[in-house]
Amino acid sequence: MNNTLRELAEKERLPLVKLRDGIGKGTIVVLKHKDNQNACAIGTGCYTKVNMNLGVSFSSPLELELQKLRACEELGTDTVMDLSTKDTVRTLKTMLEHAKVPTGTVPIYGCLDAGEEEFLKAIEKHVKAGASFITVHAAITRTGAGLAIRRRITKIVSRGGAILAKYMEDNKKENPLYTNISYIIGMMKDSGCAMSVGDALRPGCLADAMDKAMLLEMRVQAEIVDKCRMQKVPVFCEGPGHMPFDRIAECMRLQKKVQKGAPYYVLGPLVTDVALGYDHINAAIGATAAAIAGVDFLCGLTPSEHYALPTLEDVRQGIIAFKIAAHAADVVKKPQAMKRDNEMSRARFKLDWKAQEKLAITGFKLPCELGLKDSAPCSMCLSLCPMNIIGKMQKKKERKLWKVRANPNL
Amino acid sequence: MNNTLRELAEKERLPLVKLRDGIGKGTIVVLKHKDNQNACAIGTGCYTKVNMNLGVSFSSPLELELQKLRACEELGTDTVMDLSTKDTVRTLKTMLEHAKVPTGTVPIYGCLDAGEEEFLKAIEKHVKAGASFITVHAAITRTGAGLAIRRRITKIVSRGGAILAKYMEDNKKENPLYTNISYIIGMMKDSGCAMSVGDALRPGCLADAMDKAMLLEMRVQAEIVDKCRMQKVPVFCEGPGHMPFDRIAECMRLQKKVQKGAPYYVLGPLVTDVALGYDHINAAIGATAAAIAGVDFLCGLTPSEHYALPTLEDVRQGIIAFKIAAHAADVVKKPQAMKRDNEMSRARFKLDWKAQEKLAITGFKLPCELGLKDSAPCSMCLSLCPMNIIGKMQKKKERKLWKVRANPNL
Repeated sequence: MNNTLRELAEKERLPLVKLRDGIGKGTIVVLKHKDNQNACAIGTGCYTKVNMNLGVSFSSPLELELQKLRACEELGTDTVMDLSTKDTVRTLKTMLEHAKVPTGTVPIYGCLDAGEEEFLKAIEKHVKAGASFITVHAAITRTGAGLAIRRRITKIVSRGGAILAKYMEDNKKENPLYTNISYIIGMMKDSGCAMSVGDALRPGCLADAMDKAMLLEMRVQAEIVDKCRMQKVPVFCEGPGHMPFDRIAECMRLQKKVQKGAPYYVLGPLVTDVALGYDHINAAIGATAAAIAGVDFLCGLTPSEHYALPTLEDVRQGIIAFKIAAHAADVVKKPQAMKRDNEMSRARFKLDWKAQEKLAITGFKLPCELGLKDSAPCSMCLSLCPMNIIGKMQKKKERKLWKVRANPNL
Repeated sequence: MNNTLRELAEKERLPLVKLRDGIGKGTIVVLKHKDNQNACAIGTGCYTKVNMNLGVSFSSPLELELQKLRACEELGTDTVMDLSTKDTVRTLKTMLEHAKVPTGTVPIYGCLDAGEEEFLKAIEKHVKAGASFITVHAAITRTGAGLAIRRRITKIVSRGGAILAKYMEDNKKENPLYTNISYIIGMMKDSGCAMSVGDALRPGCLADAMDKAMLLEMRVQAEIVDKCRMQKVPVFCEGPGHMPFDRIAECMRLQKKVQKGAPYYVLGPLVTDVALGYDHINAAIGATAAAIAGVDFLCGLTPSEHYALPTLEDVRQGIIAFKIAAHAADVVKKPQAMKRDNEMSRARFKLDWKAQEKLAITGFKLPCELGLKDSAPCSMCLSLCPMNIIGKMQKKKERKLWKVRANPNL
């Protein structure tokens, strides 16, 4: 682990002692990866990380999900989550085998209408299969679910949350993940698997944001963070969701305070409900603000959020939007991050198109048919290209200066 | 004008007296449109407006630009600018004839290597042609241009700015638009054409943001605002550009203070330099933050910013990203704006797909091949759809309650 830590500190541009200290205090969590070649540090002081959700379902075969995995990795995702809804253990194992990044999972997606035993069994299986982190929806209680269902427009929008709300309603019992949390933590101890405390009550629309149900769940998450830390199980928390832009910073700061600096992992947040078909842009807006306000880990979403399982291209668009959000935040949070922007700007002024392509974080390739030539302007401005006009002015001035220097009689 | 004002107040959900007051003080500017059917109010208290740039160039024919115009209007652009670089007056007239929204222009794009007279002539022609607003790059001075060229990575990135910097350098003279500003204002007086004071020195990369050149130009813009107001010429100012996310609010508040509440019209701002191919997303992130901090008018940009004149599809993508940004800001600035989000959320909970399509601000149509059926979940979650699970739970409960009420013996 020591070597890994040194490498991680290097990657995060953090002094080793700070990384160690963060891990000790729980403000940084390291997500494991096979042999830890690509372990990933998440938390205060680290670069903002991006996750993308994958997973076979009744409508998407494994081969397609593996293609999505490769696309995510090419575009620089930091982690993936396998949210398969069938054959969950087998698929997770395949994903773990192929993934070059830490891989998380939500064990209870196979547990609709299951009993207490099955919930716990599912979690155990996913931990044993080697998941880097698992979402445990232990913070939704009967009170919280009741508040959400009675008072909200979109009630509960988490799949895990809905499964557990139904269990609680059908059995008139408390959430079995909440009542068995110590058992679950014990099961995870020493496995290296981190716990992502789910936010089953994340707001599903602007109107539901920052309501009683959400804030209650945030406090229950904090309890679980304490319990995990006591058992030295790495832990972080999940967050919203949908939220008006001006509440984002407030929410993120509240989380850090209530949950004592635990890393925060948010889905978006989306800053409007009416961006159907373009929710990756919508969410990237909120994600940037959230990351700057202290969020450590962004869960990307795709253009098809709210209406379909994403296609391969949807996943690509989603990860690109979130890479932009994370980088825009890092420019503010980690001064070193701006080096790349400055290099790009120099390439831009020189009209060095190849360098621009290389420096882009979007994997974008300039279309050949544009016929872009180095030092020549693009079709946007042509002869009015300011870079070209000013560049030539400068060169002329330099030539004059050179002549003056070369001939003292001038 | 009185009828127009009443309609505008209604459209902006502003009391008529507030609109009148804003216009009087210059914190609101009304952009004219043929017969004023679609005049557009911009400024404090109004909804955030979006502009899209169009314009024929050496590489894009008029017919294509008219198609782009129609696409923008269908997607709800509030204004367009005709940035043609050839046949500028003739094209402007055609655009004005076709446009259903106020249309602005930059008169000096035909003036590379022109003399003082030609600059002024060009402006006069565009005002007389009936432009709703014109950009006048009067705030770039020799000092400002010198600062930008000596100290910045990307120097000057405004086409108008480069044309004027070259004029100043070649002729060793001050900016003719600056020295002739009173003449220009006099020419515009009573024409109904508003002045958009250009920001020829807007930062073209993060590193150049909020530098001396930019702040100097902001102060010169303020001088021009004063002069316009004295002559009752409606005036607003243009702003950045590229800017780290955490400087945006600061910049916007500074502008409102320095320029005494003049409406602010920004291009982006882009929050990173490395999002090549996806700068519409990049800019929408900054635009949302800017609009919430007080910006009134957003100039959209497209995926092809920095490398090509946008295609029709690029323009569509750009306007959609900016409609999202403007709406996300309005949700915060104008409480009424959230009504649409709430309706969408209700439709979402009911799995009412047709209503969702109608309420989207993106013009997005749900693909038929998805076979979405009302009250049935989508391929994302299928049987795990939380809306479906919770919806059914609620119905079951209601049925029980109904039975209890119907039979008092139960």
